Amino acid sequence: MKIVIDAMGADNGVAPVLLGVRDAITTDEITDDFSVILVGDEREILNFSPEFSQNSRIKIVHAENFIKMTEPSTNALKNKNSSIYMAMQILKNDEANALISAGHSGATMSLATLMLGRVNGVSRPAICTMMPTVKKRPSLILDAGANTDCKPEFLVDFARMGQIYCEHFLNREPKIGLLANGEEDSKGNELTKDVFKILKNDAFFAKTFIGNVEGNDIFKGDVDVIVCDGYSGNIVLKASEGVANAIFRILKNEISQNLLSKIGALFLRKSFRTLKNEVDYAEYGGAPLLGVRGNVIISHGKSNARAITCAIKQAVKISQKNIIEHLSAAFLKK
Amino acid sequence: MKIVIDAMGADNGVAPVLLGVRDAITTDEITDDFSVILVGDEREILNFSPEFSQNSRIKIVHAENFIKMTEPSTNALKNKNSSIYMAMQILKNDEANALISAGHSGATMSLATLMLGRVNGVSRPAICTMMPTVKKRPSLILDAGANTDCKPEFLVDFARMGQIYCEHFLNREPKIGLLANGEEDSKGNELTKDVFKILKNDAFFAKTFIGNVEGNDIFKGDVDVIVCDGYSGNIVLKASEGVANAIFRILKNEISQNLLSKIGALFLRKSFRTLKNEVDYAEYGGAPLLGVRGNVIISHGKSNARAITCAIKQAVKISQKNIIEHLSAAFLKK
Repeated sequence: MKIVIDAMGADNGVAPVLLGVRDAITTDEITDDFSVILVGDEREILNFSPEFSQNSRIKIVHAENFIKMTEPSTNALKNKNSSIYMAMQILKNDEANALISAGHSGATMSLATLMLGRVNGVSRPAICTMMPTVKKRPSLILDAGANTDCKPEFLVDFARMGQIYCEHFLNREPKIGLLANGEEDSKGNELTKDVFKILKNDAFFAKTFIGNVEGNDIFKGDVDVIVCDGYSGNIVLKASEGVANAIFRILKNEISQNLLSKIGALFLRKSFRTLKNEVDYAEYGGAPLLGVRGNVIISHGKSNARAITCAIKQAVKISQKNIIEHLSAAFLKK
Repeated sequence: MKIVIDAMGADNGVAPVLLGVRDAITTDEITDDFSVILVGDEREILNFSPEFSQNSRIKIVHAENFIKMTEPSTNALKNKNSSIYMAMQILKNDEANALISAGHSGATMSLATLMLGRVNGVSRPAICTMMPTVKKRPSLILDAGANTDCKPEFLVDFARMGQIYCEHFLNREPKIGLLANGEEDSKGNELTKDVFKILKNDAFFAKTFIGNVEGNDIFKGDVDVIVCDGYSGNIVLKASEGVANAIFRILKNEISQNLLSKIGALFLRKSFRTLKNEVDYAEYGGAPLLGVRGNVIISHGKSNARAITCAIKQAVKISQKNIIEHLSAAFLKK
């Protein structure tokens, strides 16, 4: 199995990406055989990781430049020498099974949609993000940011993709909820009210659609797939990260106030570590862009090495599970 | 000063409301003179709080029934014997300075808008909720749920109301941010992109509008007023509550695993309490419904006694500050 990775364009440069690749190659968390194609500035890569030139499992493909976070996504289509364009070309040519990028996510989405095309019947691809829950089994939220303005049929397709992904990747029949401002059937905005009616009457969701869910349901673990437009998904995602960061920061500040607290915190080190791991986005890897004809994983621009390692683990698993074939089959019957 | 309180319809019955009133009457947190008009089932109220009949600062007005959470908001308009209708009538008749309800929020909003009317120039009233931040000064988010589908001019009005409320209630010139899926000017959905252009070019916001903000900015404390549609505001609010609850639950569970952690937690008791207070919605009271011609505070259906006490504190302060006059003046110049 081959995973092509865009080494460039992440918020903290090549370092976390390369450290993540190094860890993925050596970790026993990934039992399957895989190799990596790193696309980026060869000199910069080898400068940071000279040992990669000797590693038979790592191939470096030089790219002259990359799409900067400040550039418009449309630049990605014109610039065929960028790392993400070249990486996408490798995936398109079937020279890799999956692609990972922590660079410009808009560029990755545009290129994926235009170069790979959509799975037949999918109106819009969606970013599918895993969220931690108190039940220790993640929930999925989609769309987490690919489509800021949605028509009802887009959300219905997100629900269908979420169902397939949950069945085959998380190995469970999902409960699907529609994100709304209240649990009652009558709640929601115009968009979700229309979507509600369609999901309620579509036989495909007869066993899985549980109705409207609220923001707090995302973390309870009673619903597996949360469907919403990409604007709402994105702000919920970032608000959740923000709350977790704020709580850790306030607590850290409180603990530093006196010696007794510091001792208490030492005793709780293991508990804090478990908590941090459970709510740490890094452990969940990246977010697949579901609905394009290729396994594309969008990682957080701020990804650390751990997040990249987990994204590679996820890419290997997605490739094995043939998610795209399952999606194609589900949309054929639509 | 008189505060009229709907005693009925909250998720946990009259108990938290009555306990909250008892605490508000005796606490030294509220230095101003005030009395309470409790509207609800007189027998139920006196059964739980017989001492209220002897308290000169508490008047009980009997209401035959109340709007249940499961009823449609429209029922509120027909049922003139409900506790919220009667309470709103008391506010409308200027027999009270402010109203608090932890009952059916849709009913409260409908009655407030129809019975009190809107401040001249306000397109839609908005729920304005305080959020905790790491800088220990709350931010405001509006609309937090009154209007699920919005036109650009609604959000511009929310921004104007948020600015006035922040200036006069939180005593600071606000930084106003527009909630979007990215900080860049080009981010957002169709609605927020239109709002962005208007806010950017309106002299009223020349010093205060700082552009797009993301979900995590709500808790950083660098922005004071976050403007969004009521659907998004509501899901962000509930997701934030959900994350905080999940973190506390995971941590509690972890701590209970072994003796060392339990001892550590004892040492950290004070830190945990401070943290809990800082992120506890109860400390922030309720959410004013800005834009109606009356001081109406919508409390969480799940309000505990502390939340009701804080809502009363807030109601007294809002009444003193003449927020409605300031709003009227600001919208006169619109």
